[in-house]
Amino acid sequence: MSDPLKPVSIAILGPGTVGSEVVRLLTAQAGDLAARVGAPLEIIGVYVRDASKDRGPNLPRELLTEDASALVAGADVVVELMGGIEPARTLILESIAAGASVVTANKALLAAYGPELYEAADAANVDLYFEAAVAGAIPLVRPVRESLAGDHITRILGILNGTTNYILDAMTTYGLDYEVALKQAQDLGYAEADPTADVEGHDAAAKAAILASLAFHQRVGLEDVFCEGITSVTSEDIIAARETDQVVKLLAIAERTAQGVTVRVHPALVPATHPLAGVRGAYNAVFVEAESAGGLMFYGQGAGGTATASAVLGDLVSVARHKALGGKGPLESNYAAHALLPVEAALTRYCVRMSVEDRPGVLSAVAEVFARHDVGIEVVRQVPGQSHAGLILSTYEAPERDLRATVEDLRVSDAVAEVKSVLRIEGE
Amino acid sequence: MSDPLKPVSIAILGPGTVGSEVVRLLTAQAGDLAARVGAPLEIIGVYVRDASKDRGPNLPRELLTEDASALVAGADVVVELMGGIEPARTLILESIAAGASVVTANKALLAAYGPELYEAADAANVDLYFEAAVAGAIPLVRPVRESLAGDHITRILGILNGTTNYILDAMTTYGLDYEVALKQAQDLGYAEADPTADVEGHDAAAKAAILASLAFHQRVGLEDVFCEGITSVTSEDIIAARETDQVVKLLAIAERTAQGVTVRVHPALVPATHPLAGVRGAYNAVFVEAESAGGLMFYGQGAGGTATASAVLGDLVSVARHKALGGKGPLESNYAAHALLPVEAALTRYCVRMSVEDRPGVLSAVAEVFARHDVGIEVVRQVPGQSHAGLILSTYEAPERDLRATVEDLRVSDAVAEVKSVLRIEGE
Repeated sequence: MSDPLKPVSIAILGPGTVGSEVVRLLTAQAGDLAARVGAPLEIIGVYVRDASKDRGPNLPRELLTEDASALVAGADVVVELMGGIEPARTLILESIAAGASVVTANKALLAAYGPELYEAADAANVDLYFEAAVAGAIPLVRPVRESLAGDHITRILGILNGTTNYILDAMTTYGLDYEVALKQAQDLGYAEADPTADVEGHDAAAKAAILASLAFHQRVGLEDVFCEGITSVTSEDIIAARETDQVVKLLAIAERTAQGVTVRVHPALVPATHPLAGVRGAYNAVFVEAESAGGLMFYGQGAGGTATASAVLGDLVSVARHKALGGKGPLESNYAAHALLPVEAALTRYCVRMSVEDRPGVLSAVAEVFARHDVGIEVVRQVPGQSHAGLILSTYEAPERDLRATVEDLRVSDAVAEVKSVLRIEGE
Repeated sequence: MSDPLKPVSIAILGPGTVGSEVVRLLTAQAGDLAARVGAPLEIIGVYVRDASKDRGPNLPRELLTEDASALVAGADVVVELMGGIEPARTLILESIAAGASVVTANKALLAAYGPELYEAADAANVDLYFEAAVAGAIPLVRPVRESLAGDHITRILGILNGTTNYILDAMTTYGLDYEVALKQAQDLGYAEADPTADVEGHDAAAKAAILASLAFHQRVGLEDVFCEGITSVTSEDIIAARETDQVVKLLAIAERTAQGVTVRVHPALVPATHPLAGVRGAYNAVFVEAESAGGLMFYGQGAGGTATASAVLGDLVSVARHKALGGKGPLESNYAAHALLPVEAALTRYCVRMSVEDRPGVLSAVAEVFARHDVGIEVVRQVPGQSHAGLILSTYEAPERDLRATVEDLRVSDAVAEVKSVLRIEGE
């Protein structure tokens, strides 16, 4: 425990939008922050790759340094905002080894190397905080890790990617096609020129891995997350969903059952009355189901420089306070021994939309395929068509592996002309 | 800092539903909790007024004691679940004086004596946690106090009372009249036989006082909260709201402007697209607007024994961890110097519904009343009637005092037969 009046020294790695905003806020709110921490915060330097050009708008030249290792060696708290795996990983490990606490917003790094970093932090008795890595400004890590510390989380359903939520919401609200909605998201700056990481679900999957690790005290890596994006979602899917009071959302789902934990990201049908259904535009939200607390939802901006800076600063106050006054946040690597199951073991419901021959006996042939795999059918809707009839079936809950096998058999069934879409039903 | 292997001793005051559930969870999850705290938790006793009859279902007889003062004197952590002002207040002060940290779910006590208790805890360097007092199971205190510690909250809009939200939702969804919806809420156990504390807004006002104190680092007492209940909300209000894509909610609103802080509870019109509009049934939700983070919402069960026990246990893990391993949570009484303003200074918008004489010149006479008080009219809708016409006016934002004066003048205007309802418009 250091002298309460001695400043807490802060090193910032990465001079981008978030880094510049953090520096601006640390300066503008210095008095407020000092009161909350119990000691003044002093920025001792900002690491940039090339001090002659990498400089954000709020970064005074005298703070810049190209020597990251020397910078972290002298810091009480290191704020890592570089992104990417290296050199971020090495610098965080150096910081921890030198006794500094770390705040990071780096979801790719945590999804890939989280357990290594959490264990290093615990072993060195320093804090490693990462609120900004999961859902931007939404306070989520602290509630899950601390507020629910006496409860058992059974399931998390999250809208963790703003770009795909924007696209699906535009398709739902304005009847746009996928391509048009994507173009609009790109024009508005919500989607990158190359939208792959968002629309294929990779970004959501990285966040899901971190969130599942937290919720279930479980090592979950990106490779453990089943991932399916939104590129095959059509206007027809959206319209069919609306007809049954559902909306299509890209969900990250982490579930714990008696058998173990599954983590998956895919488009899903959500009842219109579910709180997640009302999440509009580029907002994120996470719905947590806990044994005692029941259903909880956390909603807010999942990205953006100032929103992310708010989350980073909240973490910075906590860890700096521990540095100034003693104490430490919760352990990071306090793992339980749940089995991590493949997605095939997950229980879910399918909504299968297909076109079928318009003749008697077809429904019975289709129903037989479901029965063969022991998958119960809850609702069947027939939609009259021209050469073929449309058929929409919703199943009861069944293991993903049986649902998949059913769909495989439907695809080769004589009665079925085409399986047009398969969406899982969640949130009921 | 005590020996990490020494148990943390827990005293529980109050043997009711929540107390019994806390005891059950402490026993059922002893191993899990010990790992998270870093030391085992040991219940040293449960205070009951009369050990021969006050005994919850999970309370072993040998834990019961009628001597509260002796019990708290030997505890590391005191969990106060008695409710009411006395003896809760005295026992919490005794606990703090004896060096114990305190977890409480007592909103009435905190709304009335919060500052005294927060200051006592700070002076004794112990924790006083109260997550369960504001919105049941919803993690709200920790996010507001810690996650947003580097941000500035500008406004909080909360649905803090489940009973009134249930009633308004039933009126909206099923077209019920107020009296029928109240009866239904009573039959389902959401409302008390005497529903006054809920429907008049008193319960929401106590929570609003605590929440405003937290958000603005400001001493706010119950007497500082303007409070208007839902008893005068009619089906006509609900229908008129729907016609303009709005819903009626009982909101608790705490706002900070350059002039100061206002805190108020009243029914309000909320846009159907606002996240608060989708909060159904007896659920609670709090929408927080912060400078950097933007809009955040926290949603969940606001009441109920197991939900409240979840929040109490989360607090218990935090404060027990501080007892076992050293450290302390944020300061409680770190007050800023905002002026606390009367509700008359709040800026809001009114939606005024009235019946007027059905003759030329009436609209101009009505408009003149608004102009006299410098209140701008944004939208006027005329609704044809039988002897009188209906007129619904929505104003631009104006100080509450000017809006009130306008309505007073409307009530005595010759052109106006009756002012049928006045609802504030919020959340835009």
